[in-house]
Amino acid sequence: MTVSNEVSPLKLLAPDGVLPARCPSRVVLDHVTSKWGVLVLVALSEETLRWGALRRTVEGITEKMLAQTLRTLERDGLVHREAAVSIPPRVDYSLTPLGRELTAHLLPLVVWVAAHADEIVGDTPAP
Amino acid sequence: MTVSNEVSPLKLLAPDGVLPARCPSRVVLDHVTSKWGVLVLVALSEETLRWGALRRTVEGITEKMLAQTLRTLERDGLVHREAAVSIPPRVDYSLTPLGRELTAHLLPLVVWVAAHADEIVGDTPAP
Repeated sequence: MTVSNEVSPLKLLAPDGVLPARCPSRVVLDHVTSKWGVLVLVALSEETLRWGALRRTVEGITEKMLAQTLRTLERDGLVHREAAVSIPPRVDYSLTPLGRELTAHLLPLVVWVAAHADEIVGDTPAP
Repeated sequence: MTVSNEVSPLKLLAPDGVLPARCPSRVVLDHVTSKWGVLVLVALSEETLRWGALRRTVEGITEKMLAQTLRTLERDGLVHREAAVSIPPRVDYSLTPLGRELTAHLLPLVVWVAAHADEIVGDTPAP
């Protein structure tokens, strides 16, 4: 399937488009835009991280949610898990080439949201 | 707050960064990357839509979830609601300038996901 950046947004959603209900793109979109999925992908976008470092970087994530998020992203082929045979055992997580490609499209959104969050939530008055 | 596109991804998540737990950017990120939030923003990115058209375009959304999603996006200043005094009553939804700016960052991600979903979910063998 070839979809250029010039595709009509409504074509994405239309009955014959690529985001109708129960189609794979809805499933993948759910994975990569899930609360923790986004943050794990951002965390891995700069460097390979071990379990503990990943957990500290993605502030607030529980062990259970981190395990579940990593399993989903690994199954999707976006995250690579590498277990080293060592004592103590050591597991590294990194983005696959596909994961890096995805994250290149995700980061501009996250950066924009971070820059505009105060304005949007309106906790702080405009200067 | 000024965050350029060249910001280090890890700076986004670090304790002193802009995406620590309980900060406004996490809240906004949750809103705009929610399952239905993404699809409603994509639907409105091309044209103003009435309630019924929006519901048909975002296939699978329930009345309750559409109402809740629109309320959140409206409160965030991303969607504009305009009720016309007419019989029958008519309500139009459109993106605000801020919503259009956000959606410009969201669409490339959605287009990429749509183009790679089959490959990721792996329902279909590679050609």
